[in-house]
Amino acid sequence: MPKLWNETIEAHRRDVRDAILDSTAALATEKGPLSVTMSQIAEKVGIGRATLYKYFPDVEAILHAWHAREIAGHLAQLTEVRDRTDRPGARLEAVLEAYALITHESHGHHDTDLGAFLHQDSGNHLAHAHQHLHHMIQELVTEAAGVGDARDDIPPAELTRYCLSALAAARTLPSDAAVRRLLTVTLAGVRPPQN
Amino acid sequence: MPKLWNETIEAHRRDVRDAILDSTAALATEKGPLSVTMSQIAEKVGIGRATLYKYFPDVEAILHAWHAREIAGHLAQLTEVRDRTDRPGARLEAVLEAYALITHESHGHHDTDLGAFLHQDSGNHLAHAHQHLHHMIQELVTEAAGVGDARDDIPPAELTRYCLSALAAARTLPSDAAVRRLLTVTLAGVRPPQN
Repeated sequence: MPKLWNETIEAHRRDVRDAILDSTAALATEKGPLSVTMSQIAEKVGIGRATLYKYFPDVEAILHAWHAREIAGHLAQLTEVRDRTDRPGARLEAVLEAYALITHESHGHHDTDLGAFLHQDSGNHLAHAHQHLHHMIQELVTEAAGVGDARDDIPPAELTRYCLSALAAARTLPSDAAVRRLLTVTLAGVRPPQN
Repeated sequence: MPKLWNETIEAHRRDVRDAILDSTAALATEKGPLSVTMSQIAEKVGIGRATLYKYFPDVEAILHAWHAREIAGHLAQLTEVRDRTDRPGARLEAVLEAYALITHESHGHHDTDLGAFLHQDSGNHLAHAHQHLHHMIQELVTEAAGVGDARDDIPPAELTRYCLSALAAARTLPSDAAVRRLLTVTLAGVRPPQN
């Protein structure tokens, strides 16, 4: 069945928007976020400046939209990992592993001018995403504790903070292998104590 | 034996310096670091402005000296805890517990204007203290692994990062009891795996 005209327009707009976000992030990484101009972005995307301004008012708005898309993508990825695993303990492990690897990979951003720029201004946005993440992990911890896959002598909210805090070290680790070792150690803290 | 005149002078200077640091920190907490003046500090300490200027050139220098003294005090406290415990496993536990409680207590500072002011400008100083701390913990981890009190399948440097990262959650916990539970969980990750 052919797409309706409206759907085609919608899909086109999304494609252009995505291209604007990608090009802007690339330029910001290359030149630093404060040096990028709307003209450079329009040129790189291959659209006119007037068209670009129909999508976004300025470079800052584009960078924040890019960041929001990145974070939403990470959360979607974690949800997907969660939903394709069955046993509670295995689910928790799989999601924490994915989270640790994402944290490790996005390390690059945090140390750049772009990272500093985004983090100084998107406090609310990040706090919201972090809340969402915390909520997701806490549900998995509670579920795992219910079947004996996680310790139940520590409140799930605290066990969740422990997990996220411990795995934050993935940012500064040199390799995926080191990230997996960090995960092993962190999960050993989560398991029921064997006295 | 009576003190030498020079020693008496030295002790007096140290006392005045400490009083300046304490008064300035109290004023900065109360009014915000940017509103404190040299005159207010001199008045609170009970010395003349001219005398104050013999010790420090401005408020910022005083606040940084205060911060440096705080950090040095925390490191000295950890060293003392380390040196009064014998068995490697117990030493590591005692030092990590003290670190977690210090982290929990200084939480107040981080969230104030004073905290923000100090952290924006003393990056090097903090990095140096953190290196010192990392080094101390890594020695304890290595020692504990050597006698079977800590796992030896993870490089001590990585186990150290795990510990410090996990215990950073102490900052956001509501009570000392929660901090001790965090410590329990973190230490469970450090112990040799029991298969």
